[in-house]
Amino acid sequence: MDAHAPADMSVVIGPSPADMLRDQTARARLAARALAIAPEAVRNQALNAAAAALRADQDAILAANARDLDAYTGSGAFRDRLMLNPVRIEAMAAGLEAITRLPDPLGRIEREWDRPNGLRLRRVAVPVGVIGMIYESRPNVGADAAGLCIKSGNAVILRGGSESVHSARAIQSAIAEGLATAGLPQDCVQNAPTADRAFVGAMLQAAGEIDLIIPRGGKSLVERVLREARVPVLAHAEGLCHTYIHASADPAMARRVLADAKMRRTGICGATETLLIDAEIAPALLPVLVEDLRALGCDFVADARSRAIVPDLAPASDADFATEWLDAKLSIAVVDGVDAALVHIARFGSLHTEAIVAEDAQAAETFINGCGSAVVMWNASTQFCDGGEFGFGAEIGIATGKLHARGPVGLEQLTTYRYEVRGTGQVRG
Amino acid sequence: MDAHAPADMSVVIGPSPADMLRDQTARARLAARALAIAPEAVRNQALNAAAAALRADQDAILAANARDLDAYTGSGAFRDRLMLNPVRIEAMAAGLEAITRLPDPLGRIEREWDRPNGLRLRRVAVPVGVIGMIYESRPNVGADAAGLCIKSGNAVILRGGSESVHSARAIQSAIAEGLATAGLPQDCVQNAPTADRAFVGAMLQAAGEIDLIIPRGGKSLVERVLREARVPVLAHAEGLCHTYIHASADPAMARRVLADAKMRRTGICGATETLLIDAEIAPALLPVLVEDLRALGCDFVADARSRAIVPDLAPASDADFATEWLDAKLSIAVVDGVDAALVHIARFGSLHTEAIVAEDAQAAETFINGCGSAVVMWNASTQFCDGGEFGFGAEIGIATGKLHARGPVGLEQLTTYRYEVRGTGQVRG
Repeated sequence: MDAHAPADMSVVIGPSPADMLRDQTARARLAARALAIAPEAVRNQALNAAAAALRADQDAILAANARDLDAYTGSGAFRDRLMLNPVRIEAMAAGLEAITRLPDPLGRIEREWDRPNGLRLRRVAVPVGVIGMIYESRPNVGADAAGLCIKSGNAVILRGGSESVHSARAIQSAIAEGLATAGLPQDCVQNAPTADRAFVGAMLQAAGEIDLIIPRGGKSLVERVLREARVPVLAHAEGLCHTYIHASADPAMARRVLADAKMRRTGICGATETLLIDAEIAPALLPVLVEDLRALGCDFVADARSRAIVPDLAPASDADFATEWLDAKLSIAVVDGVDAALVHIARFGSLHTEAIVAEDAQAAETFINGCGSAVVMWNASTQFCDGGEFGFGAEIGIATGKLHARGPVGLEQLTTYRYEVRGTGQVRG
Repeated sequence: MDAHAPADMSVVIGPSPADMLRDQTARARLAARALAIAPEAVRNQALNAAAAALRADQDAILAANARDLDAYTGSGAFRDRLMLNPVRIEAMAAGLEAITRLPDPLGRIEREWDRPNGLRLRRVAVPVGVIGMIYESRPNVGADAAGLCIKSGNAVILRGGSESVHSARAIQSAIAEGLATAGLPQDCVQNAPTADRAFVGAMLQAAGEIDLIIPRGGKSLVERVLREARVPVLAHAEGLCHTYIHASADPAMARRVLADAKMRRTGICGATETLLIDAEIAPALLPVLVEDLRALGCDFVADARSRAIVPDLAPASDADFATEWLDAKLSIAVVDGVDAALVHIARFGSLHTEAIVAEDAQAAETFINGCGSAVVMWNASTQFCDGGEFGFGAEIGIATGKLHARGPVGLEQLTTYRYEVRGTGQVRG
């Protein structure tokens, strides 16, 4: 596509977004077949060469980014997320190199067994195929996603925010250079050819052409994807995480863990949004917890039982308990034991990450087993829900669905499997 | 629901199908929480008691089945599938008992690792939650599905064909008796409360209420489910399986394997629909293969290269190569080696099961690695794609999607996992 084409493609006579996507996915499918059988060394070579190209193209990438910034009318945090600089470009390059050092997720024999009739069965990790990545503003997300897809043998179609279209194109061009250096098809990583929002709609409908959609962005983007997609999606619409302080909790640990879970970073999906605290320990501990968090700049809404203990807390409605604050704000409820905490979480939670702080191991096991969430922490901060912290090396997202992948989505979760059956002429008869 | 209610509920003033489903799924969710933490012995007790109840209720089940048969206007194979008799009831009961002998799919620690900060992580198998099973005519499918769901800790809503509504109700009643005997909620296994087809539509839309839909039935049912569902689906719309005979094949093995793959049972999804044969070996072998299969009653359509060798074969169109015959009929094409076979399969296949017959191990590995299907056989019949033959003990279906489960869907595939993180007060900092 011509870099000088108008941003609004709807006035241009030409192929529809669905036609353009069909062309891209056909090329992606062919590229994916080549990538899937490429040895790990070749995939790593592509990543290293792409990293080198990002560094070599620094000026071109910054110029492209300047065009995006010039056209951008927003400000503040959004503008900062769109902005690239030499440090951020170096971080993208180093990120690709770091992915080369992760173990190969492909070809791993997940299981191997024999049948009495002599058939030998294997379950082997293979790529998913063609992935559609839909993300907002931060251009580096495209480079990270491309790196994880290349390593895991998947072709990817990147659809970044329309405000970052020139930056995304410059980054994709460097990655294409890396793929070519390794003798891999450049179609392994393609950018959306148009900023037309209808292209996203076409991606969501492309069952059989795209195997998996991964959205990264705000709640409204993810909810649209989950609502409209006819293609499987790995995503989290929200992380309404709870920290539950059991009556047996060590008070010092509870203070330390809650402060981190709520305030380390308030804008990430693993941040705690609601404190549940046992009635038995609340009169002594809740005032201290509130004081700790207030000193860190936190705001509160609380149920009547909490306000009976700390009267100056604002009242919390059911809607508050259903809100992911993503901010220095905490909902608080006093509960009567593990079962009551689980009932609250079942009602308001998002199946992302919950934590219990408890010295009583029996209570902790009951909590862990009764909680339907993807990740359950015992005596640790909910903010540990992260691919890096899990030891996955890198993550492309977090999944709160129940099928295929839950929690951090790393290289392994970007693979599926095939059964290989080796016989000597067996028939079922 | 009153057993004497009219089959067409649309004229009755009352709750809508979506309302009825919401009531059922809310009860299923509560029941699933109890079932998920029930020890294996209790789940097995429910299955054994349900088997006993099926036997004890034999007369009532046969009477209910007679009502369905009386009202049924179809004939032949469809009527036979709807029919129950003492042998079939005993088979259902024995099937539930067999499930008790399968290993517990829950609580298995799939992986366990430590992090440098002392966090201990585990990935543990847990139930999916609430499953919606949509199936046609054969009433025993409901009993099998209920058994697998109980063992794997999932609640299930069974929606059988409208023609089997009385049979389904009698079977569900026996299973409910088994659940009650074991002290488990009867809501673990519920029947659709109405034969209204809109109830199926409500199930397909019930994202967040139903966690997984499994359809079992004809292609049009499965395609409707795949097209309309807003809930994850495990299914195969078709099994367009290929057997590829490489130039290095042992001719005797090729004859034995192909005859089984095509003709053992022609109506199952793992039956071979297309023969691909290398040009090098075709002149000598194809006439023999055709003669073998013709003696078993098989019909053929074939490409021009095949017809140059066996002139009396009917010509095959592209549409024929895209057709799952489910019958004593075989499409044939002559190809030039592994890559050409893979190109044909990529164009016409359904990602279900393919087989290569070859003595050349290098050719077989190339085929296995280049084939995107869920199951790839080397020197074995495609009809081995089956949960029992894989050693899974029982299957609820076959999945041809790429995510979560591929191939036979047994107990393990009815589970997902959660991450459990055990700390000693770690904060991310």
